[in-house]
Amino acid sequence: MDAIDVIRAKRDGGALAPEQIDWAVDAYTRGAIAEEQMSALAMAILLNGMSRPEVVRWTEAMIRSGERMEWSALERPTTDKHSTGGVGDKITLPLAPLVAACGAAVPQLSGRGLGHTGGTLDKLESIPGWRASLSNAEMLDVLGSAGAVICAAGGGLAPADRKLYALRDVTGTVESIPLIASSIMSKKIAEGTGALVLDVKVGSGAFMKTVDDARELAETMVAIGTDHGLRTVALLTAMDRPLGNAVGNAVEVAESVEVLAGGGPSDVVELTLTLAREMLAAAGLAAKDPADALKDGSAMDVWRRMITAQGGDPDAPLPSARETHVVTAPSAGVLTRLDAYGVGVAAWRLGAGRARKEDPVSFGAGVICHAKPGDTVRAGEPLLTLRADDETRFARALESVDGAYSIAEAGEPSLHPLIIDRVS
Amino acid sequence: MDAIDVIRAKRDGGALAPEQIDWAVDAYTRGAIAEEQMSALAMAILLNGMSRPEVVRWTEAMIRSGERMEWSALERPTTDKHSTGGVGDKITLPLAPLVAACGAAVPQLSGRGLGHTGGTLDKLESIPGWRASLSNAEMLDVLGSAGAVICAAGGGLAPADRKLYALRDVTGTVESIPLIASSIMSKKIAEGTGALVLDVKVGSGAFMKTVDDARELAETMVAIGTDHGLRTVALLTAMDRPLGNAVGNAVEVAESVEVLAGGGPSDVVELTLTLAREMLAAAGLAAKDPADALKDGSAMDVWRRMITAQGGDPDAPLPSARETHVVTAPSAGVLTRLDAYGVGVAAWRLGAGRARKEDPVSFGAGVICHAKPGDTVRAGEPLLTLRADDETRFARALESVDGAYSIAEAGEPSLHPLIIDRVS
Repeated sequence: MDAIDVIRAKRDGGALAPEQIDWAVDAYTRGAIAEEQMSALAMAILLNGMSRPEVVRWTEAMIRSGERMEWSALERPTTDKHSTGGVGDKITLPLAPLVAACGAAVPQLSGRGLGHTGGTLDKLESIPGWRASLSNAEMLDVLGSAGAVICAAGGGLAPADRKLYALRDVTGTVESIPLIASSIMSKKIAEGTGALVLDVKVGSGAFMKTVDDARELAETMVAIGTDHGLRTVALLTAMDRPLGNAVGNAVEVAESVEVLAGGGPSDVVELTLTLAREMLAAAGLAAKDPADALKDGSAMDVWRRMITAQGGDPDAPLPSARETHVVTAPSAGVLTRLDAYGVGVAAWRLGAGRARKEDPVSFGAGVICHAKPGDTVRAGEPLLTLRADDETRFARALESVDGAYSIAEAGEPSLHPLIIDRVS
Repeated sequence: MDAIDVIRAKRDGGALAPEQIDWAVDAYTRGAIAEEQMSALAMAILLNGMSRPEVVRWTEAMIRSGERMEWSALERPTTDKHSTGGVGDKITLPLAPLVAACGAAVPQLSGRGLGHTGGTLDKLESIPGWRASLSNAEMLDVLGSAGAVICAAGGGLAPADRKLYALRDVTGTVESIPLIASSIMSKKIAEGTGALVLDVKVGSGAFMKTVDDARELAETMVAIGTDHGLRTVALLTAMDRPLGNAVGNAVEVAESVEVLAGGGPSDVVELTLTLAREMLAAAGLAAKDPADALKDGSAMDVWRRMITAQGGDPDAPLPSARETHVVTAPSAGVLTRLDAYGVGVAAWRLGAGRARKEDPVSFGAGVICHAKPGDTVRAGEPLLTLRADDETRFARALESVDGAYSIAEAGEPSLHPLIIDRVS
């Protein structure tokens, strides 16, 4: 088989044959297809698409490029969630211990942030001592003792995806629904979970800006999961405004702990419970109501065990930023808009995110939203607090914040409902 | 500026801004845009196209990546021809000395063959002692003394094109009319000729299979040339059957010498004279009839001077292949079809061409066509003679030849006219 023939087949609008897909993914992983050949193929896939059978096969080939994890020793059903990423999306933090408290095992492999969307591992690393990298044996230990584990994916899982993702990142070929879907699903299937709930974010702060694109991605991922024998459900959820009030790293951990303590912002609580119910149902554990596990402290117990088992101190003070800057409401009225993207970029510029993979993040930096769309505000009242380690960062963050909100004398914000749709 | 932004602009169907084009070509030449980024951009260009102003600017940027030659010292108008390549297309060999004999200077930078189309330099290298690589000073010397020079393009000419062509070759991004047109024209404009005639081949043995594609390529190249102040004309000519009777290296040199001696196959003579008249007209030298320069021996004189000046011996016997195999007509009738591609692939498999850039070619190998479409043949009469250095090559060459001809009891071949159209 020849790389140019495979590229040409997709370039000329045809479907790739199963053996072409198997060969291409394997040859690329081995280095027999060069980076510049795979990037041409990725661009042809982005522009000409892939059919459902092609995406399923492509995903399978990526899974086969590495190891496949296995959790039968646990004697508990495994269930996991994946979010496509957003601004203030700390849901994994309360969700994993909550679902574990209801009887499932949650082997959650997470990533780091890039650009304006945060990463779960960056957030957890703001907890003093907490370690993201675990061996497979350590992961099994934490899962066994705490019921949930959140850690970095090891290098052995879908190495083809790792290599391809790095390539797509620099070649303008990220925004392809078949490539996004197969990238996410190859890791989740290789992770060995028995059930999977996908949180596909929609709106300015999300990767998918429209409901149509999000639905297509959700349907593609559900089809891939189902074809691989994984019970898979997807929710489309709102990312036109930030999720919760805190956007950053340590500030999102603090908000997550509030939720585990039975408090926290209502949207974070509602989405956490909705996803928990889906994860438990997909795992065949619909008996226990997760709302009870928030009330009775059992979810918080799992959180503390999980953090401790990974070297973290759940009682240690979280890092805070040295400098703060308060943005006040310029007029009285209703906050009709608080744009997720604008707030996300502000948090990123404050130091909470990174521009390049190798950059460090500031744990204390971020944005606190004192009002959410629909809230009434008074002139001069605090709207947002910006936090940074270095006050020179405020100017550029404020540029992003300035156009990100609207206050009207009266009116209703035009927003997506928190839960837009369900795809199964 | 950022490579990903440029890739995205073209990927999403937009036009590249002039400064994006200038930056991208320069950054790629310097290595600041990686190979995998340029291949993604090339695929996006192939699939989404480029407007006329984009192609003109892209060509200009490629010219600017290197040196630009200059022939004002010659005190003769310069004129050149470029063919998009075909089977048996040896026209440059008689044409360059013929046009020089009529008063123009012909600085012809040529290439080598790859796949089923031959290369002018490979053909000339079958002349004992002849050297393709000349310094700029040597090139000027030969032009001054002989009036014509055919040699390899130096590394200083459009290095961006050299790098991009090698990349396109391995990434399935060759077949893009804007990229083909800008590749050809950047070299021809940098070569410094004052007038240019393009021979755009059409048919199975050519790169452009249809008249429509060929016309689009011709119009694009004429527009680029005109925009750069180069007097440019294109002819669309037939490449559905081989040009002339000889296909190979030494056999094509021999046929070219026949034409220079006033003989040779009628199609080679007609195309050579037509192109010569166009080149002379474009150079403002319409007075002398090139047919006279074939009859009076002055074109042959230039040929001998040119070959000698480049170290070749015009009187030395040409290499011949050790083995021959004759294909005879299986029945009597009219040869209604002799497919250029089939004959070209046969010559290639006999050793006349190369599969990879680093392969050597056999100078003696090739195909002699004893009949051309429209000729009447008798059963058992020789149709083709295959020549190779090694008789094991005949089997695969015969596979290609077998389906390449048709003999009917009566009838007319359905062929393109030799000169299909003219674009100026």
